[in-house]
Amino acid sequence: MNIFIACELGRSEKIYIQDALQKHNVYFSNQVFNTIADNKYLKCEIVFGNIPPNWVAQSSNLEWIQLESTGFAEYSEIKTNILKKDVIITNLKSFFASQVAQTTLAGVLSFYRGTDLFVLLKNEKKWVGDPIRNKLEILNNKNVLFFGKGSINKEISKYLKPFDCKCSFIDSHSKKEYILNKINLAEIIICALPGTKSTKMLFNKKMLDRLSKGSILVNVGRGNLIDENYLIEKLNNKTLRGAVLDVTSEEPLQKNSKLWNCPNLILTQHTAGGYTNELTDKVNFFLDNFKRYSKNTSLLNIINPLKGY
Amino acid sequence: MNIFIACELGRSEKIYIQDALQKHNVYFSNQVFNTIADNKYLKCEIVFGNIPPNWVAQSSNLEWIQLESTGFAEYSEIKTNILKKDVIITNLKSFFASQVAQTTLAGVLSFYRGTDLFVLLKNEKKWVGDPIRNKLEILNNKNVLFFGKGSINKEISKYLKPFDCKCSFIDSHSKKEYILNKINLAEIIICALPGTKSTKMLFNKKMLDRLSKGSILVNVGRGNLIDENYLIEKLNNKTLRGAVLDVTSEEPLQKNSKLWNCPNLILTQHTAGGYTNELTDKVNFFLDNFKRYSKNTSLLNIINPLKGY
Repeated sequence: MNIFIACELGRSEKIYIQDALQKHNVYFSNQVFNTIADNKYLKCEIVFGNIPPNWVAQSSNLEWIQLESTGFAEYSEIKTNILKKDVIITNLKSFFASQVAQTTLAGVLSFYRGTDLFVLLKNEKKWVGDPIRNKLEILNNKNVLFFGKGSINKEISKYLKPFDCKCSFIDSHSKKEYILNKINLAEIIICALPGTKSTKMLFNKKMLDRLSKGSILVNVGRGNLIDENYLIEKLNNKTLRGAVLDVTSEEPLQKNSKLWNCPNLILTQHTAGGYTNELTDKVNFFLDNFKRYSKNTSLLNIINPLKGY
Repeated sequence: MNIFIACELGRSEKIYIQDALQKHNVYFSNQVFNTIADNKYLKCEIVFGNIPPNWVAQSSNLEWIQLESTGFAEYSEIKTNILKKDVIITNLKSFFASQVAQTTLAGVLSFYRGTDLFVLLKNEKKWVGDPIRNKLEILNNKNVLFFGKGSINKEISKYLKPFDCKCSFIDSHSKKEYILNKINLAEIIICALPGTKSTKMLFNKKMLDRLSKGSILVNVGRGNLIDENYLIEKLNNKTLRGAVLDVTSEEPLQKNSKLWNCPNLILTQHTAGGYTNELTDKVNFFLDNFKRYSKNTSLLNIINPLKGY
């Protein structure tokens, strides 16, 4: 087989993958993704990594793409090409759940226990001490509202068990009345939603105004979920306790982004899924799925690009 | 009865306590604690709050002190006076457990998920993103070594259950060999020890050198547990991944303290026990114990100052 590796790997992972696939032709991408598809790619039946969606239609050899992400919103438009060619797409569903869940917990606890404040005070060599004590909170018995019922939110709710939080979940079947009722009571709102038409700008001005003043908003899904300018306004005028954003409408953020100056905001720079063994484990997932492909058994995590999640 | 309130309360808590004790004489401290005891104090049989230890011997009326802390190391020297006068001392054992446990979890997760780094990067308006991913870690399966078997560490170990951490506990009965064996493997070391002769400088150079390079050290007990200068050295030369200190040898820290410039250090400025309802809940604990005192039933949390914990 001819295999195109589109994801960026370190030297050791390249050696590892070449070794595992030594009976095959492995081509590594040069990490330049132009509109016109790479010649090496065009020879390949298999791709590991997220190639530009418009490359799919340019290849007559392509059979299977193993994405290196959970999300695949950018591939939703290529359905006809895929269907014509019977290209299978698999993703890394659940692969990032523990990491993202732990970044979320870290962010929420940072606001409750003042870690973000203490990091800034240390930077200024400033001792405040006691007067901070009654501004701190504990997680116990908090009302937590999850947007999304996927693996990330399930994982977070598992972590919250010892704190006796009251957890509620919103999904695409939730009635508007239920959502509005829950959001008024929520003290922590955690969004781990896929990028679909119905999630785009779900947190518009109206929705953001429903959040209570003392609540914390977390978004670890897609950057277009939130009206960012209005969120900035709310954080600046203290009508929201805090926000944790792993994803933003613009990435990387430009120097002039108003988000940088926003108080009570933790920006995790789209790293929530990361961890020490991320690359090796991604490669291992691909290699496991490749074994299935070679044996003609059904692949893990086949997605329907039309659905968006 | 005559009751001296030594702890610093807000206006609302003062009204609340006066209202609850309206049949008694309540004297509020002016928060100036000289060597010579306050005249108002000298009239009182009951004290709520941590008076200077040398005041105890100056009073012939004193019967009971309700401390507003868990620790009482500073009272260990007054044993003879206390015994002569049959003064009872009660503390706030377990009162701070959840809060301190959550500050600990916040600190450890901050290092693992990079929150402290992201707060500083935001301050500099600097995007790094992807290259940070493989420096992040997750809590799962970590070796956690607890020094102390009290309520704080029990609470933390409860929080760690969903992460399948391997938890080990050290207490005053632990054999040296066992400690040294465990400390070599530990990835997170959490110290919640009382201030006693045997805990003072327990983390001396030799002990600190036993910690593995990738480990995180947390101290939420007493500031004299650790050789701070050597800890600073280790953090500066990156032979320790990080430290979370709620307590330090000097409090408040002076501007010239080397701790301020130390990398990978979170200083929570002795606030780990704090939370929104801290004062009200402390007052409620005292009032509950006061009811017991009035009814001549045994008080909660009677301590033995000799033991130190």
